[in-house]
Amino acid sequence: MAITARPDVAPSAFATTYDRVMAEIAGREPGVGPATAAARAPGPRLAVVACMDARLTVEEVLGLSRGEAHIIRNAGGLATDDAIRSLVISQNLLGTQEVLVIEHTDCGMLTFADEAVRRNLAARTGANVDLPLLPFSNLEKNLVAQLGRIRTHPWLKRVPVHGLIYEVETGNLRPVE
Amino acid sequence: MAITARPDVAPSAFATTYDRVMAEIAGREPGVGPATAAARAPGPRLAVVACMDARLTVEEVLGLSRGEAHIIRNAGGLATDDAIRSLVISQNLLGTQEVLVIEHTDCGMLTFADEAVRRNLAARTGANVDLPLLPFSNLEKNLVAQLGRIRTHPWLKRVPVHGLIYEVETGNLRPVE
Repeated sequence: MAITARPDVAPSAFATTYDRVMAEIAGREPGVGPATAAARAPGPRLAVVACMDARLTVEEVLGLSRGEAHIIRNAGGLATDDAIRSLVISQNLLGTQEVLVIEHTDCGMLTFADEAVRRNLAARTGANVDLPLLPFSNLEKNLVAQLGRIRTHPWLKRVPVHGLIYEVETGNLRPVE
Repeated sequence: MAITARPDVAPSAFATTYDRVMAEIAGREPGVGPATAAARAPGPRLAVVACMDARLTVEEVLGLSRGEAHIIRNAGGLATDDAIRSLVISQNLLGTQEVLVIEHTDCGMLTFADEAVRRNLAARTGANVDLPLLPFSNLEKNLVAQLGRIRTHPWLKRVPVHGLIYEVETGNLRPVE
């Protein structure tokens, strides 16, 4: 647990992001937010699985506009059961026909050991929860494993599934198969 | 399964988004992609849980810049075990101190019955998978249930947790507690 929050953040007029968003909403004309004419099913029939990392702005990195992809994100960009659930719905009910999986360099998931963190959490909270945190030690191998799970899951279609590593240091995208 | 993909999509020069992205990367100078100086831990210490819907561009809707939030997304914007896993990492290893949950009107999750779709998938694929798809029938009630799960999970901190409904028809954000 060596990672710490940024000490260099300027203080805001608002205690929380919620307070800021609520203040902005209060100053808005009704119906002038970012609405959309896009349909429920993404135009390019694309689903993306990506890490939750704050630096990985998925639409920007892929050059996508609003309405162009289902975006599924979790810690690591993993093909967990919940990501598979989302892809099953995306493909079978909403017609997507391609999957991109994006992981990234400097990922927090490379920095801790599951058992140590869970033992620490259990000790601190007094609650033993069966919740593996799924860290990994090799970025490329981990990405390849996620691609394999998506390519072979019985409820997912045999559509193109590609892996990309986003390099936070340079902004480059690197394909991994 | 009444939802169908959009018939009104213009043909692209590329068969898949992956092909388009690869063509764009090939034309780029190395190191000129959207890189970031942001740190692994989000500045505003914010984590967002949101639906994967293509119309819900989370950063835009909340007025967030790159590096400002962990963004966790799945079908529905649900506090599944995997979303909880991601929040545990976000809070305990990366220091976030606020959670926003965003669901939206016209959600695909309001349109189907779990058992019927799963029976259909099992019949079509020949594979019986234990994977509840977690649709819901009442948007507000479902959002409140997700807030409750996050507010009470033993491994999550007692930080502000707020719910928002994004109205795709108007672009408005509506708070739900």
